[in-house]
Amino acid sequence: MIKTDLSFIGDEAKKLMDAHRAEADAAVALLESGSGRGSDFLGWQALPFDYDRDELSRIKSAAERIRKQAEVFVVIGIGGSYLGARAVIEAIKGTYHNELSDGPKIYFAGNSVSADALGELLAICREKNFCINVISKSGTTTEPGVAFRAFSRLLTEKYGDGADERVYVTTDKSRGALKALTDRKGWESFVVPDDVGGRFSVLTAVGLLPIAVAGCDVDALLKGAADSASAQKGTGTQAEEYALARYAMLRAGKSVEIMVSYEPRLTMFAEWFKQLYGESEGKEGKGLFPAACAFSTDLHSMGQYIQDGQRIMFETVLSVENSATDYDLGEDDDGIAFLNGQKVSFVNRMAQQGTILAHCDGGVPNVVLRVERLDEYNVGAMIYFFEKACGISAYMLGVNPFDQPGVESYKKNMFALLGKPGFEELREDLNKRLRN
Amino acid sequence: MIKTDLSFIGDEAKKLMDAHRAEADAAVALLESGSGRGSDFLGWQALPFDYDRDELSRIKSAAERIRKQAEVFVVIGIGGSYLGARAVIEAIKGTYHNELSDGPKIYFAGNSVSADALGELLAICREKNFCINVISKSGTTTEPGVAFRAFSRLLTEKYGDGADERVYVTTDKSRGALKALTDRKGWESFVVPDDVGGRFSVLTAVGLLPIAVAGCDVDALLKGAADSASAQKGTGTQAEEYALARYAMLRAGKSVEIMVSYEPRLTMFAEWFKQLYGESEGKEGKGLFPAACAFSTDLHSMGQYIQDGQRIMFETVLSVENSATDYDLGEDDDGIAFLNGQKVSFVNRMAQQGTILAHCDGGVPNVVLRVERLDEYNVGAMIYFFEKACGISAYMLGVNPFDQPGVESYKKNMFALLGKPGFEELREDLNKRLRN
Repeated sequence: MIKTDLSFIGDEAKKLMDAHRAEADAAVALLESGSGRGSDFLGWQALPFDYDRDELSRIKSAAERIRKQAEVFVVIGIGGSYLGARAVIEAIKGTYHNELSDGPKIYFAGNSVSADALGELLAICREKNFCINVISKSGTTTEPGVAFRAFSRLLTEKYGDGADERVYVTTDKSRGALKALTDRKGWESFVVPDDVGGRFSVLTAVGLLPIAVAGCDVDALLKGAADSASAQKGTGTQAEEYALARYAMLRAGKSVEIMVSYEPRLTMFAEWFKQLYGESEGKEGKGLFPAACAFSTDLHSMGQYIQDGQRIMFETVLSVENSATDYDLGEDDDGIAFLNGQKVSFVNRMAQQGTILAHCDGGVPNVVLRVERLDEYNVGAMIYFFEKACGISAYMLGVNPFDQPGVESYKKNMFALLGKPGFEELREDLNKRLRN
Repeated sequence: MIKTDLSFIGDEAKKLMDAHRAEADAAVALLESGSGRGSDFLGWQALPFDYDRDELSRIKSAAERIRKQAEVFVVIGIGGSYLGARAVIEAIKGTYHNELSDGPKIYFAGNSVSADALGELLAICREKNFCINVISKSGTTTEPGVAFRAFSRLLTEKYGDGADERVYVTTDKSRGALKALTDRKGWESFVVPDDVGGRFSVLTAVGLLPIAVAGCDVDALLKGAADSASAQKGTGTQAEEYALARYAMLRAGKSVEIMVSYEPRLTMFAEWFKQLYGESEGKEGKGLFPAACAFSTDLHSMGQYIQDGQRIMFETVLSVENSATDYDLGEDDDGIAFLNGQKVSFVNRMAQQGTILAHCDGGVPNVVLRVERLDEYNVGAMIYFFEKACGISAYMLGVNPFDQPGVESYKKNMFALLGKPGFEELREDLNKRLRN
């Protein structure tokens, strides 16, 4: 479970929290009653309890099969169809899971349209026994669409008719280009529910299949999320405290939230966080700009700015109270002899405590979220905690937490420039601007 | 060479640039005459021309030896002793160089004090033939110190007396704990020059040895930097235009600069940029907060915020005009049939152009830096370009571009909490604060 520690936010923020507590309570009520904006997309709240047992069991069997079938598993998706799975796998199995795990190596494709990035992953697959999981609600999103075409082609080249046994699809239950193709080909498929937005979808097949292929215990992940959902129900919860603290920071004039961790394996989790909060809140000119740092690494890059630059940010420290492993430094007469007899986990903890105090002294308040350890249960709990706090937080801002109208702008322009039918007028207009 | 394209910054920023051009010219003069603050650290300006030929030739021989000697090469360093090498290797050899290159796999350690991160890399090395490069000016920096102790111990366990042939040191030429130990052990060593700060050190042995081990052509890298240094000399240069444009953005009220690229292999280069600019400018309450995005990936996470959130940022797009490879989409009747007959590089270019226009329309100006391709020559040119523009930019702000006083704050606190002799009073004080 997650604890919100407000010891390092300062008195001004605490006063602001008190002043706005009623608004936070109202946001909780709005979210839990399903009467707020975007309430067609509240399906994520039920996932930890009510997730389709049949689908879950098919996910687990498919994962077992894939683990036997393939040396390399390529997950094709972008945004919410990419970040959740990668965040969970790295948090639990470590940054170097591909080097150290005995299961298939897992790569993520279709999250850019870089020819070089695509070419690198194709080159890896050319030499290996591989299968793919394409994740797209519509099947028409450009980035995964491009990758899916390239990897399908390679599958057919390598396996002929056997290619069809190596394609796993996660898409809409009945509509869309990808669903139609899937039915025609007979590929095994899983569902992206209608009432769960991309950035809230990690506890559906979107995240669960890759996570299970990585060898994680998806039952424990869902159990952690379910217990977290119970713990975060109603007012006065740790999630509400976090949402309220963030709101107080915004009111105090902060415009950037830096999600900080002292465990490099949380780097992608912070990216998942950035999408969840940035996409939910960043609209109508509002919201905290979400940034991320991995400390102590980035204390030697962003540290100077955080200590002494413009005073526009606060930090949220995702503090892992127990590392999975440890290392005993023993004795030596090298440059760090003062650490003789210590454990590395102790050094890391002191780095964290020292930094929190230093940054507070520099005018950067720290919200500390304490999580026991990075296992399936606790990562599941973190997922639900952040989702719930995000809904509360966005409702406090007065925005719809569950839409993303701004994402369409680049897509429209891109379609127009690529000559997609229906965008002729915009195309002419854009080309005129580009020529000037 | 790099071209600064200001077509997408808007009229207000252009006017501000005109209004402050004299200050930019003065900053150039200050930097080039060596009469500004921090002028003891201007050694980076001469590196592309005057780098010690003997040292360079020893770097190249050592790299050849390491490529034969090891399956795994562990680079131990933090901040400037980490980011430059990793940025260049990934930019040139790709994100998946370890999977695809025929040389040793290269891992970076000692850039955190996470026990789990350390344990993962030790586990990789346990099974492989490996050697290490420890990079530390003093030898007393905690993070690399911890990793160096752990990896030295593993080397001795595995290779006994042969361990000494597997340690390559980059440190001060005559002083410090690591230099003393190196002389005693007879390890091969390279120099961190006195007049080059960490974040400006990629074109010394700090960066060049790992870059050469990765199979990059370090002569071409230096040649690109040298030609860039010539091109960026004096006023009216592309580097000055970039520095001046950034300053105009700050004057126009922007507080966040997002370094954007459409090539995932530039992700670590953007991290190098963040250190260079954040640490050089983020002082005395000044400076742009440096952030980074990899598009189109992050258009599906940060895109909504950039389009519609608080209007506090501008983007600098590092535009790679030619990808290294390409992929022909051919014909198919799938969800992206409108792209039949196109190349992936074309789709990526249209995504970039469409996004630039969409973000401009959303009130986020775009500075575009155009680089021909990601090879050694051009990456060398990019390095010098950004270093030069950084010096100009920091002088325009009125800060010392070459110090980092704020980085000491967390270190002092950490030392005190770890019980390092000499910090007893601070320790008592901090413990009191942590108890409350």
